Amino acid sequence: METTNVKAFGTHAADAPLIQMSIERRDVTAKDIEIEILYCGVCHSDLHTARNDWGFTVYPTVPGHEIVGKVTKVGSEVTKLKVGDFAAVGCLVDSCRTCSSCAQDLEQYCLNGWVGTYNSEDKHLGGMTLGGYSEKVVVEEHFVLKVPSNLDLAATAPLLCAGITTWSPLRHWNVGKGSKVAVIGLGGLGHMAIKLAKGLGAEVTLFSRTPNKEKDALSLGADAVIISTDEAQMNSVSGKFDVIIDTVPYVHDVNPYIGTLTISGTLVVVGYLGGLAPLLHTVPMIMGRRAVAGSLIGGIAETQEMLDFCGKHNIVSEIEVIKMQDINQAYERMLKSDVRYRFVIDMASLKR
Amino acid sequence: METTNVKAFGTHAADAPLIQMSIERRDVTAKDIEIEILYCGVCHSDLHTARNDWGFTVYPTVPGHEIVGKVTKVGSEVTKLKVGDFAAVGCLVDSCRTCSSCAQDLEQYCLNGWVGTYNSEDKHLGGMTLGGYSEKVVVEEHFVLKVPSNLDLAATAPLLCAGITTWSPLRHWNVGKGSKVAVIGLGGLGHMAIKLAKGLGAEVTLFSRTPNKEKDALSLGADAVIISTDEAQMNSVSGKFDVIIDTVPYVHDVNPYIGTLTISGTLVVVGYLGGLAPLLHTVPMIMGRRAVAGSLIGGIAETQEMLDFCGKHNIVSEIEVIKMQDINQAYERMLKSDVRYRFVIDMASLKR
Ligand SMILES: [Zn+2]
Ligand SMILES: [Zn+2]
Ligand SMILES: [Zn+2]
Ligand SMILES: [Zn+2]
Repeated sequence: METTNVKAFGTHAADAPLIQMSIERRDVTAKDIEIEILYCGVCHSDLHTARNDWGFTVYPTVPGHEIVGKVTKVGSEVTKLKVGDFAAVGCLVDSCRTCSSCAQDLEQYCLNGWVGTYNSEDKHLGGMTLGGYSEKVVVEEHFVLKVPSNLDLAATAPLLCAGITTWSPLRHWNVGKGSKVAVIGLGGLGHMAIKLAKGLGAEVTLFSRTPNKEKDALSLGADAVIISTDEAQMNSVSGKFDVIIDTVPYVHDVNPYIGTLTISGTLVVVGYLGGLAPLLHTVPMIMGRRAVAGSLIGGIAETQEMLDFCGKHNIVSEIEVIKMQDINQAYERMLKSDVRYRFVIDMASLKR
Repeated sequence: METTNVKAFGTHAADAPLIQMSIERRDVTAKDIEIEILYCGVCHSDLHTARNDWGFTVYPTVPGHEIVGKVTKVGSEVTKLKVGDFAAVGCLVDSCRTCSSCAQDLEQYCLNGWVGTYNSEDKHLGGMTLGGYSEKVVVEEHFVLKVPSNLDLAATAPLLCAGITTWSPLRHWNVGKGSKVAVIGLGGLGHMAIKLAKGLGAEVTLFSRTPNKEKDALSLGADAVIISTDEAQMNSVSGKFDVIIDTVPYVHDVNPYIGTLTISGTLVVVGYLGGLAPLLHTVPMIMGRRAVAGSLIGGIAETQEMLDFCGKHNIVSEIEVIKMQDINQAYERMLKSDVRYRFVIDMASLKR
């Protein structure tokens, strides 16, 4: 298979910084789209993968799955986009396309294993897929999204992971006009959850452990902030929320939030992979038919729906644009939650 | 308020046996129905209440909330039933009737607190409500159910708690023809879950820790039995079930079952009030949009729907009929799970 070498930023080991490297991209096949990457958001998964926090990173690895760029080449059968169009790629670049999940546009739950944008087996070139911290990417058109023309391109990039990860549960659990939604945690995911739930017409409350997030939350569109450590404030929202989007990325206690769900309400964990501690108590669940669920990113059709919705409602992420060469410092700042609310790499910096 | 004394069986203390006692029943008010109790099922909650396992029993207490009987008197405004009709009463005898839950026929989730058939505050007589281990009960017509004429009366009694407790989640989570349902635990609740899910057209699997339940489960209508301690058997049902009804009444690990849910499937805890140990792990939930939920009995309209369904499909509980005087021995046998699958008291024994 013909390939082209492109510049990228990645790492050769869990304890090594990200450095510039050269990687291969395949030439477009009939259904492929080649995209020149203009912006790439920086997700916590990038950092976890670079540092092998989950134990399954294959090196060298190139992170990045919040990709926005411009189409530079299309295969002979491509109909979705043409050269010069803006395009986006999120967390998925392939799936089996035949299982019951794929048949329902739920590629993120593909029963035969979806192919992630990085650190997944690359069916075309062998080895592992390499992500968006690079000049170009080649992706089959089904997994390429169209970008609404009115949106800021850099601020659109985080929609491809942080956006869809919160959009999908909001839609699955039927959030709309009149819904009461709460968001736990105000980071990359949390700030998008507020904007998207608000855009869908919900009344939105942020749960925060500290009062210092209030001003920001309100300016992002939240209607209220509840300090989760304040018992009186927690009691004031007892039985209130139809859906809670829990974006907390570390081990935490969901029990205090269950009682703030309405009858038949659902708390959806989207940010934390691990055991929920302390023990989940069944009484508030049974007494109100309440549920705790998980949700993973979103399907391709749903991602396009979200992008179109964001175009219509002029919703983008709050970002801090960085140069590719600043990625290691950005990771350190992310570890301290020192980012409002997403770093986005201006990939022009890689060309220098 | 005029009252009548009737014979009952109850207890004066957590550590005392149930004995015969005399209790008061109010005369019917305009909307009340007086029922001569013919049969009363014996629920685990009866035992927990008699022995104050939950810490809120007020003595003397008379358990029993699986009541089937015959109407002996009706108030002037009663339209639902007439003297001589068969009637049933379940776990609820009142609720606020005005909150959003009550307005949705979800009296079991009444936001102002429903009135249980026993050990709840009695709005009419003061003191606490006293249950079905008695000759008669007086209940407002809204909370009285009609009994299909074709069903065995004794075997119908457990439908009022064990039946509706499993019916409600099956209906709420849309079980029907083609659904794949699993049931954890084969007791009073579990055996009804199998029969009702089967009646609804689902393919039904029992999860059991031991192989000795297989024959019984199949004879109750289950299509398969999976031994939950057998890893190969568990793997064989990975991703299979739309809904799992978890009837286990003690602390247990739900994690192994989550992976047997299909994408977007739900495990519903109906039998255990407490902390789920060990920790609930989010990975199988997030990776398949799976949920853990709770569910409590059912509303009155839904209970009638279940009874009518059981009449149509000729579904009743498997029971062992006992005399009122044998209740203390029956409790001891329940503690050893030595009952297939529900004790039902023949209340004629109380008249002697
Ligand atoms: Zn991400
Ligand atoms: Zn698939
Ligand atoms: Zn019961
Ligand atoms: Zn109510």
